[in-house]
Amino acid sequence: MSVRDELLQRFLDAASRGDEEALSLMLSQSRELLDQRGEQGWSALMLTARNGHYDAARVLLSNGCDTSVTNRSGQTARDVALFWGHRHIARLLTSSPGHHLRQLLPSTDTEEPDIHFNREILDRMSDRRSDGEWLASRRASPETVFLLFHALSPLVRSGAEREEQIKLCKLRSAAVQELLTSSRTLEVFLGVDKQQQQQDDDDDGMVAWFALSTEDDPTQLLKDKDPSSFFLQEAMPGLLRLSDDDAGVVAQARSVLAWHSRYRFCPTCGGDTKVEEAGYKRTCLRAGCRSLQGVHNTCYPRVDPVVIMLVLHPDGKQCMLGRKKIFPPGMFSCLAGFVEPGETLEAAVRREVQEESGVQVGPVQYLSSQAWPMPSCLMIGCHCVAVTTDIKVDQNEIEEARWFTRQQVCRNAALHQCLSNGCSAVNGCRQNESPNS
Amino acid sequence: MSVRDELLQRFLDAASRGDEEALSLMLSQSRELLDQRGEQGWSALMLTARNGHYDAARVLLSNGCDTSVTNRSGQTARDVALFWGHRHIARLLTSSPGHHLRQLLPSTDTEEPDIHFNREILDRMSDRRSDGEWLASRRASPETVFLLFHALSPLVRSGAEREEQIKLCKLRSAAVQELLTSSRTLEVFLGVDKQQQQQDDDDDGMVAWFALSTEDDPTQLLKDKDPSSFFLQEAMPGLLRLSDDDAGVVAQARSVLAWHSRYRFCPTCGGDTKVEEAGYKRTCLRAGCRSLQGVHNTCYPRVDPVVIMLVLHPDGKQCMLGRKKIFPPGMFSCLAGFVEPGETLEAAVRREVQEESGVQVGPVQYLSSQAWPMPSCLMIGCHCVAVTTDIKVDQNEIEEARWFTRQQVCRNAALHQCLSNGCSAVNGCRQNESPNS
Ligand SMILES: [Zn+2]
Ligand SMILES: [Zn+2]
Repeated sequence: MSVRDELLQRFLDAASRGDEEALSLMLSQSRELLDQRGEQGWSALMLTARNGHYDAARVLLSNGCDTSVTNRSGQTARDVALFWGHRHIARLLTSSPGHHLRQLLPSTDTEEPDIHFNREILDRMSDRRSDGEWLASRRASPETVFLLFHALSPLVRSGAEREEQIKLCKLRSAAVQELLTSSRTLEVFLGVDKQQQQQDDDDDGMVAWFALSTEDDPTQLLKDKDPSSFFLQEAMPGLLRLSDDDAGVVAQARSVLAWHSRYRFCPTCGGDTKVEEAGYKRTCLRAGCRSLQGVHNTCYPRVDPVVIMLVLHPDGKQCMLGRKKIFPPGMFSCLAGFVEPGETLEAAVRREVQEESGVQVGPVQYLSSQAWPMPSCLMIGCHCVAVTTDIKVDQNEIEEARWFTRQQVCRNAALHQCLSNGCSAVNGCRQNESPNS
Repeated sequence: MSVRDELLQRFLDAASRGDEEALSLMLSQSRELLDQRGEQGWSALMLTARNGHYDAARVLLSNGCDTSVTNRSGQTARDVALFWGHRHIARLLTSSPGHHLRQLLPSTDTEEPDIHFNREILDRMSDRRSDGEWLASRRASPETVFLLFHALSPLVRSGAEREEQIKLCKLRSAAVQELLTSSRTLEVFLGVDKQQQQQDDDDDGMVAWFALSTEDDPTQLLKDKDPSSFFLQEAMPGLLRLSDDDAGVVAQARSVLAWHSRYRFCPTCGGDTKVEEAGYKRTCLRAGCRSLQGVHNTCYPRVDPVVIMLVLHPDGKQCMLGRKKIFPPGMFSCLAGFVEPGETLEAAVRREVQEESGVQVGPVQYLSSQAWPMPSCLMIGCHCVAVTTDIKVDQNEIEEARWFTRQQVCRNAALHQCLSNGCSAVNGCRQNESPNS
C-alpha cells in the first residue's frame, strides 16, 4: 500500500466515523483528498452520508467538496443519505452546492445587452416635476412632444422602414390644446430629449416630452387628428412592434399611467386623491389622513420586481423551460415570478423554481434587468444552477417543465435569439411566435 | 523615423481628419495603436475630439479605447471636446466608458454574503395560503409559533447571549387563543420551519409560524403574557439587534403588515377590502369593481425596488459616499434611491448618482440584494464606475458627497465592515453608530 493510498484510507475512515477534527486537519495538509474515492468509488462525503455524520459532511462541504461525484452504483452522496434515511444530510447536500456548480454560470464581464423597453432616450429630470412654471413653459413650447394614450394604449401609425413596425405619433402643442385643458386628460411629464440636450445645454433648446392619457372617445379624436393613426389594440405583442427608442418611452409612460388607472383612491383611507409632481404622485385629499404623514410608499407609483430565470442543469448541458396553459402549443419559456415581501432576489429565484418545478436551486447569478410595462414590472433576469433534477410541476402554476439540451434550444430560432440576448428577453419571446420544441 | 512611429503618425492623422475607415482598418491590423500618444501626448481620441469628428470617436470607443488618458496639459479627450465646443462628443465620451472601467469592478465569483434580514429559516409554502383546513390545523397545533406585533413592532425580550441582543417572543397556541378570535387581530401565515421540515417530511412534524398584529392596548397584553417582554420601540436601529434568524422572519412579517396598515381600502374604487390568502391578498368588497377583473397588482403586497450603490472613482482608488442632513455628524453612506417605473436597475443607478451628486456613471454591476422591511423595500446593491469626477450635490437630496480613499474608509471600522460585506449592508450601517470620517 503506497503512502498515498494509506493517507486516503485514513481520510475515508475519519469520514466513516464522523471525525470532523481529523478531516479538517488532513484537508489542511493535503486538499486533494477531498473528492478522492476509495473502494467501490465511495468518497468521504458519501461515507458521512452513509453513517449520518451531519457535522462531518458540513466540514467537507465547507471545503468545497463536489456533491455530484457518484460511486460505482451511480449514487451521489445525497442519494446515499436518502437511501439510509438521513434526510437532514440529504437536505444539507441539496442546499450547499459545491463551488463547481458556480463555475457552470456564464461569465458576467459583458456590456449591458440592448433589450426591448430598456433604451432611455429621455432624461427624466425629476427635479423639474414640481417646477410648475418650467412645466408650463415646456407645455407651451412648439418643440414639445406629446404622446397620446387611451386605455393605456399609445397612439401610433404604421412604420416606414419595415412593414410590421409601428411608430409613436408625436403630437405638437397646437394639436393637443383642447386635451391639455380637459379634466378628462391626465398628464405625465416624461423628460427631455437627451440627444438635443447634448447639442444645446440651454434650457430653450430642451425638447420636453409629455404623455397625455385621455378618456375621450378615441374614434372622434382620430377623425380630428390624423386618420392614418390608430390606438394600438393589444399591448402584447403590439408594443414589441415599436422601435427600441419608442419602446423605452412607452415603458415609462405606460407604467405610470397603469398606476393612475388603478390607484385613483387613497388606499389608506379610501378618499379621493389629486395628482401632483407632474404625474408621479397622488396625494390624499382628506385632511388628517395618515398617508399625509411619515415615511411610506402609498403616494408613489408601484414598480413590482419579478425574477425570471434560466435554470441550468448540473450537467452544464441542459436548461429548464416551462409552459403555461395559455401558451401557444409547443412554446416554452423561462420560469418567472414576483418577488415576495421580505425576500432577496436569490431567495425569490429559489422559491419560484421550487414551487413551479420541484427542482432545488443552488448558485444564482444576476444577468440583466428589463422594464416591463404590463402593468409596471421590473424583470430581473438571472441564471441559476439546479442541485436536483427531478421535475414535478405545480399544475396551478405551469402545465409542463422540461430539461432541454443546447441543441434543442438552438434548433429553435426564436428561442435561440432570446437566450443569446440574456434570459430576461425570453419574456418578450413568450408573446412572440410559437416555436416548436 | 521607425516603422512603428510612422504607423502611429498615420493613425493619428486618420483621427485628425476623422477617417473612420482608415481607423478601423489600422486597428484591425494593430490594436495596440488604440491608446498610443504622439506629440504633446495627444491620443487619436483627443484628435477626434479636437476636430469634432463624432463618428470617428465612436469607432475608437467601440474598440474599447481608454477615455481617461490625458495629454501633457492634463486634459482628457472629453476636456478637449468641451474646450473646442463639441458638446455632443463630450457627451459621447461620458456615456461610452471604455472596457478598462469595467475592469475596476470587483470579481463577482463569490457566494452570497450573510446579510441582516436575508436569512430564510422558513419555507413560505405559498400553496397552503388558500388551504383553510390545513391552516386551521396548524393554528391549533401546540407546536405552532406565533409572533406578536403592535404598530409594526414585534414582541421581544432581551437576549441571553449578548447584552445588546434581543429575541423574538415565540408564543404558543394557548397563549394567543383570545387574539386569534379577535376582530382586532390580523393574521399572516409566514411558513414552516425548514430545519424541522428536513428532519421529518410528515405534515404533522411541520412547525408553522404565524404573525399576529393586534390593535389591542399593548400594556395590558404584556401584563397578561410575560412582563419581561416588550414591543420594540424604534424599528431602526432596534431590528438590527435581532439575531440573523429572527431578523429574516421579521423582514417578511413586517413588510406584509406594513402593507396592510396602509392599504386597507381598494385603491381602484375606494371601497373596503377583506383579507385573503392567509394575509397575502386584500380583495375589494364592492361587486363590479375593476380590481376584481384582469391582470393587475392592486390586491397584492407592495415590494419597492431600491438601488443602493458604491460609486468607484475612475482611478480605482476612491469611492463616493454621501450624507443626508438627518445623519449623525461625520457619517457617510452609499447613495441610494427608488427604481422608477419603466426603468432598469442600471438606469436607476445612473440616474440616482447623477441626480444626487452630478457625477456620471459608466459600468454598473449587481452585487447582492437585501430585504429591507422599512416599510417593504428590496435593496439592490451595485458597484458602479464613475466616468466624471466633479461632485455637485443636489441639496434637496443629500447634504454632501465626497470621494474617499480606501485608507479613509478602512480607518473607519464600522464602514469597513459594511463595505467588505457588500454595499447593500452599508444601508444597515446608516442606522448604526456614527463613524467619524
Ligand atoms: Zn387618505
Ligand atoms: Zn374596489
